[in-house]
Amino acid sequence: MYTSKINIKIRDTILDPQGKAVEHSLKSLGFNSVTDTRIGKYIELKIDTLSEEDAKKITEETCRKLLANPVMEDYEFVVSKDGEGK
Amino acid sequence: MYTSKINIKIRDTILDPQGKAVEHSLKSLGFNSVTDTRIGKYIELKIDTLSEEDAKKITEETCRKLLANPVMEDYEFVVSKDGEGK
Repeated sequence: MYTSKINIKIRDTILDPQGKAVEHSLKSLGFNSVTDTRIGKYIELKIDTLSEEDAKKITEETCRKLLANPVMEDYEFVVSKDGEGK
Repeated sequence: MYTSKINIKIRDTILDPQGKAVEHSLKSLGFNSVTDTRIGKYIELKIDTLSEEDAKKITEETCRKLLANPVMEDYEFVVSKDGEGK
């Protein structure tokens, strides 16, 4: 069993109003050193395959076909094997 | 300048209907090896501080005070220094 941790982020060139709103709230709370905020999605998949290669391939495909919007979003992911004995 | 990459996830013991919906869609698309899906938030902060310690402290504080719901969510983050010359 493998775990894929996927981060999906709106491209840097595209305006992120949700991020701006959170940035504004952070500034109101006194966090003046925060200069930029971007908000995206975090998705964790448990994948039941035999090899890490397969798990990576499946994760890549799920991002391309469903999870990420290829026009507006970038994604990156890390695949790791679940601990033995769990 | 430092970049904080924060992943916020609903606790494993709490039902994640959005994750279940995506899992169902993945199965409809033929991804039968995906056995669990959890959806959370990904937040990227740019922090203008002198030391990595300060950046970590600020990130921790933003999570506690605004970004994460301490009752329902867990968070983890990585802080890295932005590349020289950028």
